[in-house]
Amino acid sequence: MIGSELQILIQLLAKLPGLGPRSARRVALHLLKYRTELMLPLSEALNTTAQTIKICDTCGNLDTQNPCHICINNHRELGLLCIVENVADLWAIERSGSFKGYYHVLGGTLSALEGIGPEQLKIPALLQRVQTSGIYEIILALNATVEGQTTAYYLADALKTTNAKVTALAHGVPLGGELDYLDDGTLTAALGARRQL
Amino acid sequence: MIGSELQILIQLLAKLPGLGPRSARRVALHLLKYRTELMLPLSEALNTTAQTIKICDTCGNLDTQNPCHICINNHRELGLLCIVENVADLWAIERSGSFKGYYHVLGGTLSALEGIGPEQLKIPALLQRVQTSGIYEIILALNATVEGQTTAYYLADALKTTNAKVTALAHGVPLGGELDYLDDGTLTAALGARRQL
Repeated sequence: MIGSELQILIQLLAKLPGLGPRSARRVALHLLKYRTELMLPLSEALNTTAQTIKICDTCGNLDTQNPCHICINNHRELGLLCIVENVADLWAIERSGSFKGYYHVLGGTLSALEGIGPEQLKIPALLQRVQTSGIYEIILALNATVEGQTTAYYLADALKTTNAKVTALAHGVPLGGELDYLDDGTLTAALGARRQL
Repeated sequence: MIGSELQILIQLLAKLPGLGPRSARRVALHLLKYRTELMLPLSEALNTTAQTIKICDTCGNLDTQNPCHICINNHRELGLLCIVENVADLWAIERSGSFKGYYHVLGGTLSALEGIGPEQLKIPALLQRVQTSGIYEIILALNATVEGQTTAYYLADALKTTNAKVTALAHGVPLGGELDYLDDGTLTAALGARRQL
C-alpha cells in the first residue's frame, strides 16, 4: 500500500543503527514533511560525504584528506600515540581537547568468537609505525569492556619489544557519577587507585 | 576536528526524529562503512522520493500519484470513510488489512495550546467531502490520547448535520495484553464494554 519508492527509502532507513521498521517510517514521514530544508540537503550531504571522505592510511581516521589533518599537523606532540578502537572514540578524545599527540585507530577489538585476529585489525601497521617513528609513549585508550581489555593486554604484550612506554586510561568514578549507581568493578578500581589529598 | 562535509552530514542526521548528536555520529560512521551498499542508495532514494512523492488532494495520503492509488481504487467500499490523524496511522490500518473503505487524513489534532483549529486541519475538506460523495459511515480512527479524543468529539458534533453514521474504534484490552500492565482507563473501558460469550 506504500508506493515502491517510499518503501525502498523506508527499507534503507531501517538498516541504520538504532532504527527499526517503525522508526524508519517515522523518519521517512518527517523527511517528506521537510523536503527542501532536510530531505534534499541530506541526500546531497550523503552523496558528497560518500565521495569525499577518505580513510587516513597512517592512523585510520576519516577525513577529506589522506593523510588526515591530525597526522599532517606538526604542532602536535610527536612521540605520543593514542590507540583507539574506532573513529568515534578518536572523536570523543579530540572533543575533550586534552590530548595533543597522534592517533592509531585499530578498527575494532580482538575477538576469537568473530574470528578477528591481529591481522584483521591495524595491529601489524601499529607495530611497524611504533618501530619506525620514534614514539616514546603509547596510550591504550580502549573501551573498558572485556573485548577492549583483552585487546589492551595483547597490545601491551606485543609492544614490549619496542622501547616505548605503554600506558592505559585510568579507571575510577566518572565526573558527576554517583557511587550508588556505579558497578562493583568500577568502585573496586576507584578504591584500589585511591590518591592522597 | 571532524571534516566540515562530515560535520554537515552529522548535523542533518541529528535533526531526524529519534536521533541525537551521539546517534547521528554513529549513523554517519555506519554509513561511511557501507558506502556503496547503503550510503549512496540512501542518498538516491531520498532524492527520488523527495521528487516523486505527492500528497493526495482527496485524502491526504502520500503516493507517487495524485489522487493516490487508494482513492482511485473503485473496488473498495464506496460509502465507508475512515478518519485518521496522520499518514502513519493510515499505513497502520492498511497493514492490518481489515478496512476496505477510503481514508481522510486530518494532518494532526485540534490543539488550543498550539493554535491548531479546524482550518489548520483538513476538517473543512472533510465536511465538504462527506456532503458531496454519498458516504454512509464515518469511522473516527483517532489516537486514544486527550488530543485525539477531543478532535473525535469535535468531529462527531460537526458531522451531525450530515446523514452519515459516525462510529469510533472500540476501546479494550489489546490482543496479547496483560491486565497487570494495563492502565485503569483501559480496564474501565474494557469492563464497561464487556460482551457475552
